[in-house]
Order: sequence, then C-alpha cells, then structure tokens
Amino acid sequence: MKPDRAPITVNGRSYQWSDRPLVVVCVDGCEPEYINQAVIAGRAPWFKRMMADGTCLTGDCVVPSFTNPNNLSIVTGTPPSVHGICGNYFFDRHGDNGKGAEVMMNDPKYLRAETILAAFSQAGAKVAVVTAKDKLRKLLGHGMAFGKGTSICFSAEKSDQWALAGMPVPSVYSAALSEFIFAAGIKLLERDHPDLMYLSTTDYVQHKCAPGTPGANDFYAMLDGYLSRFEALGAIIALTADHGMNAKTDAAGRPNVIYLQDILDAWYGNERTRVILPITDPYVVHHGALGSFATLYLPEDMDIQAVCTRIAALPGMELVLTRDAACKRFELPPDRMGDVVVVSERLTVIGTSEKRHDLSALDVPLRSHGGVSEQRVPLIVNRPTRPMSAGHRLRNFDIFDVALNYTL
Amino acid sequence: MKPDRAPITVNGRSYQWSDRPLVVVCVDGCEPEYINQAVIAGRAPWFKRMMADGTCLTGDCVVPSFTNPNNLSIVTGTPPSVHGICGNYFFDRHGDNGKGAEVMMNDPKYLRAETILAAFSQAGAKVAVVTAKDKLRKLLGHGMAFGKGTSICFSAEKSDQWALAGMPVPSVYSAALSEFIFAAGIKLLERDHPDLMYLSTTDYVQHKCAPGTPGANDFYAMLDGYLSRFEALGAIIALTADHGMNAKTDAAGRPNVIYLQDILDAWYGNERTRVILPITDPYVVHHGALGSFATLYLPEDMDIQAVCTRIAALPGMELVLTRDAACKRFELPPDRMGDVVVVSERLTVIGTSEKRHDLSALDVPLRSHGGVSEQRVPLIVNRPTRPMSAGHRLRNFDIFDVALNYTL
Repeated sequence: MKPDRAPITVNGRSYQWSDRPLVVVCVDGCEPEYINQAVIAGRAPWFKRMMADGTCLTGDCVVPSFTNPNNLSIVTGTPPSVHGICGNYFFDRHGDNGKGAEVMMNDPKYLRAETILAAFSQAGAKVAVVTAKDKLRKLLGHGMAFGKGTSICFSAEKSDQWALAGMPVPSVYSAALSEFIFAAGIKLLERDHPDLMYLSTTDYVQHKCAPGTPGANDFYAMLDGYLSRFEALGAIIALTADHGMNAKTDAAGRPNVIYLQDILDAWYGNERTRVILPITDPYVVHHGALGSFATLYLPEDMDIQAVCTRIAALPGMELVLTRDAACKRFELPPDRMGDVVVVSERLTVIGTSEKRHDLSALDVPLRSHGGVSEQRVPLIVNRPTRPMSAGHRLRNFDIFDVALNYTL
Repeated sequence: MKPDRAPITVNGRSYQWSDRPLVVVCVDGCEPEYINQAVIAGRAPWFKRMMADGTCLTGDCVVPSFTNPNNLSIVTGTPPSVHGICGNYFFDRHGDNGKGAEVMMNDPKYLRAETILAAFSQAGAKVAVVTAKDKLRKLLGHGMAFGKGTSICFSAEKSDQWALAGMPVPSVYSAALSEFIFAAGIKLLERDHPDLMYLSTTDYVQHKCAPGTPGANDFYAMLDGYLSRFEALGAIIALTADHGMNAKTDAAGRPNVIYLQDILDAWYGNERTRVILPITDPYVVHHGALGSFATLYLPEDMDIQAVCTRIAALPGMELVLTRDAACKRFELPPDRMGDVVVVSERLTVIGTSEKRHDLSALDVPLRSHGGVSEQRVPLIVNRPTRPMSAGHRLRNFDIFDVALNYTL
C-alpha cells in the first residue's frame, strides 16, 4: 500500500512514495558474476533467497562505465546527456579563460539535472546518503534540504560520523571503507528512520579480486549480512551497480595497455592531439588511471574519419566513434566530449603516455572497467515486481523507478 | 640449433624442424584469467616462471570461438576460410539429395587443407596426437603417416591406450579426461621420443568453474605439474587455447538466453527461417548447446538487411552481419555459412527454440563461448622468442610458427 502523498516528478519521471524505508544500494563495480559466485560458494544466503522471494534483473549501465556518470544517472534517473556528468575528469574547452583546461568534474556546477534524492528531501522526506569517497558526496547531496534538519549526506572517507558506525576509521583503500557505509546505514535506519537512503560503495575489492576468489566472496558475504539486517529492519532494498569489472591483463597478469597518446604523438606529432581519460581521479592506486574508455581532442585540420579508421585497426580496440555517433549511442553530452570516442575490448585498457601512468602501486593484476564490456549490471529488489513496459531496455538508472513504482 | 633438414611448407608457411621434441598443447577454453588466477593463488609455479624464462603472448582465436574450428586452425596454420571447418555442426545446402540437411562437420571430407601434423608425419617425423574427445580425432589425424608405423593419434574418450596413461578410464565429463591426455603424453614422450606432439584437452572444467575458484585452480595446478614434467624431459612446450570462456548468466546464475528461432518464428512465421548453432554436438551436458554465435538461413524473398537491423536491436546482441561481411571479418568459408551471422555479447548466449534446449543437466551456472568476447587467448612458449613482424595480428594458429621458427 502506498502512502497518500502525491508522487514526486523528477526529470520527467514520476516516483511514488514508499510505505517503508527504501534503501537503494549502488555496489561499485558489481559485475553480476560476483554475486553468482558468492551464492555458489554458499556465502550469500540473502542473495540466493532473492531469486525466489524478490526480483533479480540485469540492465545496462551508462558508458563510459565509470563511477560518477553512473551514480549521477542512478540518482537522477537520466543518462549523462541530461545530467551532464560524463566522467570524473574532462577537458573544459572554456576553462582557463577560454584556452581550455583539464579539470575534475566533481563540482555540482557541472550537474544539469535535479536528483531524486533532492526532490524527495525538498518535499519533506528524510533522506540519508552515505558514499565511500568524498568525490561523489557533493554531487549526490546537491539540492538536498539539509536546512530543514532532516536529511544527511556524508562520505566514509571524510566523515565526522565515525562514531555512528561503531568502527575505526577505515583506509580509503580498503574493503572496510564500504563496510563503514553499511554499518552507518544500519545505525541511521535505527536512529533516524529515514524514508529514503542511498548507499554507494567503492570498488576497491572488485579492482583487486576476481569473482569467486576469497577476497571477493568475503566482501559479498559482508554485504549479504548487512542486506539481511536492512531487511529485518523492514526496509525495501533495491540494489544495482555503477558498472561491471573485468580482468585487463594477459595470462601472466601483465596489463594489456594501449598507450594512445604515445601512438598518436608518433603518428601525428607531439601534442597535436589530446587523449582524455575520464577515469582519471586522485584515487589511482587500484587502477593506475587505466580504463577501457577515452575521448580524443583533435586539431581542426585533422581528418577525423581517417584517425578513427587508423585507431580502430589497433589490436585491442573494440569501438571507435565520432563525437556525434558516440553521444547518440551512449547518450552523452556533446559539449563535454572530444572529437572521437575510443573503447577498448574486454581485456584491454587505454592509457595516455606510458610515462604518465604509475603502475608501481598495482600489487595485483589489473582489473578495471569503462567500456561496453562492463555494461551489464544487476538490479535486485527484495520484493516481487511488475515488469516495465515491453521492449523497455532496462538501465541501472531505472532502479528508483522499479523500486518505487513497480514493486508488488 | 636447428637440425639440418629442409623446412616443411604447409599452406604457404614454412616450418623448421626442432632439435628437441615439440609439445603443442591446446587447452580448451583457456581464458587467460585462468592461468593468471592460478598463479596468484600460488598453484602454477611453472606458468609463473614462464614470465621470466619463456614467452607469454596474447592472440586472437577464430570466431566462432568454438573447439573444432580453432583446433583445425591451429594444426593447419590457417583460418576456416582455408581449412573449411567453421563449426561442429552446419547446414549442408547440398545434403540429403540437394534438399539440404543439418549435419556434423567432424568428417575429414569437410577438411580443405593439409595439417602441419600430417606434413611432418609424411616427411618422416614421429608425430603423436592425443585429444580428449573422439569428435576431433579423425580431423586431427587426417593424412598422418600411420602406415609407416611411427605416428599415433587417439582420443582419450575412445582409446585402446588406457594402460599407457596408467590411469583408470575417465568419464567424458570429467577433469580426468584432460589429465589422461597429459599422463599419456608423458609416457609417449618417454617411450617413443616423438618429434612432435599435439595434445588437445576438453573444456569440461572451464564450463563449470570460474577463474580462480577451487575447481579451476586444481585443474591448472595439474596442468602446471605436467608441463614441468614435459620440460624436465627436454621438450619445447608451446601452449595456446581454442577459445576463452565467460559466465553467461545473471547475478542469480540463470542463463541469459536469446531463443532466436522462437523470436524469428514469431516475427516471420514458423520455420520460415532456420537458426543454426555451430556449437551443437553430442556432448551438450556442460553447455546445453548454448553459445554466443549463430548463423541464419533465410528464404530468398526476405529483406536480409531489415532482418539484421531488427535482430541487432534485441537486448544482449553484440553484432549482426550479413554472410559476406561476416566471412570477410572472421575469415570463414561462405559456402558453409548462412545468410546472416549473429554474435551475442559477453554474458549472453543464443539458442534456437526454448523447447529444443535441455538445461536440466546444467548443475552449475552456465559458462560458455562462441563470440568475439572469447577471442583473446594465451600463447605461451617455454623459450624466449623473437617477435613476429611488426603489425602482425597474432593468432592462436600462429603457435606452430612461433614455436618452430621464432624461438631463440
């Protein structure tokens, strides 16, 4: 039974109020196989039960399959063409007084759409947001009604809420950073009874551990335990992921890297072209800023189609598209993309120049994401749901819609 | 130092004689990550040592990424456009007195190229071939000089050589079927001192177990042990795979299947079109005849391009090509392919009609192959090697060339 409050419309979709607390969880880098293998290993009884008692679907995330674009898609219910956040990092053509500058895209000034979190918060709902890394906090919390004293948004990384979780301060590079989020979420649910929670983890473990290996199974066993606690507290749980995860190495564990800036410099001359990796952020220890997606800025006199053809022939490339084709296919904002979009295949990543990537901190073989090969992610709800309309391509950013409008 | 015998030319490539016994191993379904994870787990010291002492490369297998096309590519050094074997199963347009018939493609009459094994055998080399399943034995042994009494070719499945391996007769669905091959190979090497051995395993374990999980690590530890024994006996070892392997399920372990014949029947009428799955063979217990590749036969009055466009829009599809485009891209024999070639994405397989697939024997979540997503495979040699020419796209069917012509 739904409460007698008018639905909230955000970015053209209408969301009903839930009669129970809704906990939406974005498990960073949650390739479906992680859950599957944890179930096989007997470490995830809650997930196993969801096959019978709940809903387990598969949908597509946003490409580039990176954290920030997908988290913003999930909380706005829109693709990046609407909300504007198409990476962690981009080349702002208008930056540095019109000369152009490479900048982080984690300031709310870049956000072009309202979030579902903000809309519910503004309408009087108690909303709680806990994220792993501070880079996401400001974007996710943007527009929430903190002034009314009911909503809360903090990151595990930079928190004054340590006592809440009852855990010691975790390292930003640890499984405990994600556990902190769930521990804090349980306490918030017990103490504040929020209407809506959004919990967004970090993929530290997924970058390190393959599905079904001990470190991965330990993480999903931890997650499984917290989800059953949320359920015991009466919550509706809706889980999805920002992106999947794949090995990006050869059989010897060495990364398969295309250093695209080096190649373009050799072909066309030094610094004639600019390779931008939207995965770039200050937290590079676990992936060395290597992902399967890049965008290129070319000088005006260069034949874009010829460049595309030449790059497409490089071993390890999956897809090379002009800006228009890429923005149409992946629903990206053209003003924030380069002239060309480049996607590498499942086991290959794209770098800029070899000298600009420090791989010395990679203590296990590289696993990463960013491409089309990391696009399939789970959508799991601990309730039966009605299907969305026939022919609808399910996306991870349908998760609020499914949870609020399609549960039975 | 190479022996003073004239190189053997097969299908336009020239192969030198080796001064030591050469053991070429095709590890069925050997996704690179299996080896990588076994090394991480400390179960594969021989493979770990190859990073320093040998050569570890990555190349592309043939698409469709199935067993028979790739084994025949490896032993002929050519793509299926040359050797003709483009699946386990095909629609012979000329079969059944011109009416056309769906038939297995494991008879040597379908083979259009000489094998490297046959050429060396005919030239007086002792050649030993051991394969897991009998479906491959006749193709691999075709043209070998058994009459001269020096060469041998048998399958583990139907063998009179049980005593050789010193093992009990293994089940066709077991890891032991592959172990038998290596045990027999060691005995053959000790007893007969062959110049050339080709050992081809079965992917029973890879269909069951994800990289890094206990069953997979046990298999690679077994393999690692045998490879170090071959090395101790003085062999040059050259290892590759017929194809990779991926999970083909959702997070709940249910297979992601596009039942394409059912869809086409609903769109165009019953039996108007014919979906052929080249993975089809009598051994379906571990994959239910579900892979990521299909070819379609359409009636002459049907608009092929319109069919392609419509199929390409189905969720889970990666690539839909006309016969000409597919045969060009994947180097396939046009006379043995349908009007359209369909490839599904990494986590999705293609079926015919739901009622024709018996999934009841799948006792673990489906893992399979057949698509572009299973194309990257390892090439490992226990010797340093010179690189092949710049710009050469390395293939699994370069393995004899690398081992015989490029070792240092």
